[in-house]
Amino acid sequence: MDIEKASALLAVAIEDARTSFAEGGIPIGAALFDSSGNLLGRGHNLRVQEDDAAMHAETDAFRQAGRQQSYRDKIMVTTLAPCWYCSGLIRQFRIGTVIVGESQNFRGGIDWLRENGVEVIDLANQECITMLADFIRANLALWNEDIGEQ
Amino acid sequence: MDIEKASALLAVAIEDARTSFAEGGIPIGAALFDSSGNLLGRGHNLRVQEDDAAMHAETDAFRQAGRQQSYRDKIMVTTLAPCWYCSGLIRQFRIGTVIVGESQNFRGGIDWLRENGVEVIDLANQECITMLADFIRANLALWNEDIGEQ
Repeated sequence: MDIEKASALLAVAIEDARTSFAEGGIPIGAALFDSSGNLLGRGHNLRVQEDDAAMHAETDAFRQAGRQQSYRDKIMVTTLAPCWYCSGLIRQFRIGTVIVGESQNFRGGIDWLRENGVEVIDLANQECITMLADFIRANLALWNEDIGEQ
Repeated sequence: MDIEKASALLAVAIEDARTSFAEGGIPIGAALFDSSGNLLGRGHNLRVQEDDAAMHAETDAFRQAGRQQSYRDKIMVTTLAPCWYCSGLIRQFRIGTVIVGESQNFRGGIDWLRENGVEVIDLANQECITMLADFIRANLALWNEDIGEQ
């Protein structure tokens, strides 16, 4: 996938990250697309908004996409490199392609995904980096809770 | 943890697996306990009941337990060895102990969890083995959908 197309898909996830921030939540967004770029589901972190520890951006987008028969040709787009939980989701359901906004604030499982045959495109997007870095600086305890770093 | 105590905790997860089966769903149940054996949350696979692809038994139990400050002293009990998705959850949130009813129908990520310092107790429980084996035989397409084997 070329960078221009990947960036267009990332814009949807960034929009969800902004929504989460506006709701007082952790600003991470995600979206699941089919191979033609049709949106199947989108979502964002819901730890604050719904006190739901199980809804990271990727799991919310996955849920919103409903039951799919196969994920091999699907594209998961997320503003931040997926944690082990969300990387496990990607591996178990064999999602073929993952576009990450950035992996500087958190590297997650992207090396493991690549080792297991997942195409990972890291866009090192400056808005994603800044939005989350600012949030972590102001909300360190909440951030640590969200990644199990207590 | 001794086998007798582990078996008593597993009984709660088995009850949830039976509930799921009675609802027409995939018969896998899970529960999260604190180190004293107090129940924090319990749940079961909700793919059929709520068309929710994100709710495996372990993720449902984790969600039902609400936001916890630390999981190191928590115990995840599940009737079946956790898949990569649920193993990733356990690793990310550093759940210290996992009790699995069985790993014969599906081995999941238990070796990976052990390599990463999680205590995994496999009870090889005959009811868990038989309940899921019978279900898979009768519902192979649904089972494959639930583990991303399409």
